[in-house]
Amino acid sequence: MADKPILYTCARSRGLRATWAAEEAGVDIDLKVLPFPPRYLAPEYKEINPLGTVPMLVDGEAKMTESCAIAHYLATKDGYTDLAIAPGEPDYAAYCDFTYHADATITFPQTVFMRFVLFEKDKGLQEAGHAYAKWFWKRLVKLERRLGGREYLCGDRFTVADICCGYALILSESVGLDEGVSDSLKAYRERLTSRDAFKRAIAREEAGLKALESAGA
Amino acid sequence: MADKPILYTCARSRGLRATWAAEEAGVDIDLKVLPFPPRYLAPEYKEINPLGTVPMLVDGEAKMTESCAIAHYLATKDGYTDLAIAPGEPDYAAYCDFTYHADATITFPQTVFMRFVLFEKDKGLQEAGHAYAKWFWKRLVKLERRLGGREYLCGDRFTVADICCGYALILSESVGLDEGVSDSLKAYRERLTSRDAFKRAIAREEAGLKALESAGA
Repeated sequence: MADKPILYTCARSRGLRATWAAEEAGVDIDLKVLPFPPRYLAPEYKEINPLGTVPMLVDGEAKMTESCAIAHYLATKDGYTDLAIAPGEPDYAAYCDFTYHADATITFPQTVFMRFVLFEKDKGLQEAGHAYAKWFWKRLVKLERRLGGREYLCGDRFTVADICCGYALILSESVGLDEGVSDSLKAYRERLTSRDAFKRAIAREEAGLKALESAGA
Repeated sequence: MADKPILYTCARSRGLRATWAAEEAGVDIDLKVLPFPPRYLAPEYKEINPLGTVPMLVDGEAKMTESCAIAHYLATKDGYTDLAIAPGEPDYAAYCDFTYHADATITFPQTVFMRFVLFEKDKGLQEAGHAYAKWFWKRLVKLERRLGGREYLCGDRFTVADICCGYALILSESVGLDEGVSDSLKAYRERLTSRDAFKRAIAREEAGLKALESAGA
């Protein structure tokens, strides 16, 4: 029997996409929650992932570090499931587009904001962070227009595209960027985070974090 | 007969991934080269793409704006071709990972550098741009280790993963970030840019740009 895929992550990081996708897809993973930031608090992790970033999925010989790629992979590795849109389905183009859009366009500007406004305050580069907060809010127009009257982004069903973009909206709430997020996008986020699989994913990450804290106490 | 997909782009922008993928895949596209930046020089384009960004692919009712997604889509829309790695092939995980890695991790920091160091010099935020130049160089370790003795990233053949990551290396040369790019990655870039399909893509974009300049003269 093949070993389970191992997911290294930090609670509520971008890796939540992967934990969540595993719960939605029913893929049994071995979840390893690391202290944040792992590059300082779990230096041995750099031997497994030289980037020092989370998440990382190890599945046999495969090693993956991109959260959107891992979520898509978990939903397709043994063939396309309903969590992904396959070539030939009408919304295949939109599915591809939004799974890439999530990190490349609507998560990265938030990370620039977090760096210069929340983490490295002493550098005096807040203006650079705020410039990217505005950039993020402007780019939400694509998600906004796509959702329109839709419940989910693609194929009239919940898919990995919702996991990928949904996480960007979850992040905006947690880092204080909700000011430029519309009510309709907040309602969409609410639909996503009320799913059982999402709640299970959060519970698993929290349990991992608590175990870590107990071990360190 | 269905209309050809239309690709809106600016010469040598991220859209080069899409032009190049179309040439590699033999997909007949209608290439529309716009002046840069289109949001100021082709304001009517915002009616087609409210983000105002390039590239944009219009294929029937589908509209896509993410360059890596478009490249992957062109190689798989009528079923997986050899330019992509399909679920079940040994390098499927790596293929997914690198197609997302290209923009989410190794192109975005370059765009922050471009903004604050090359375009908005008067803002005095150069330090923010240089911080992301360093960030970019550090993240190249993943590409570096993966390539090792390999000619291409996945499946012992040229794929869209090479188009996606290759463009990030092409960008680093053109914006002056080659200082932190290793000789082996430069050799990899050279292998990619010496391909006939790459040269045809560049020639098509240049021809589009010249036609535009003649029309404006």
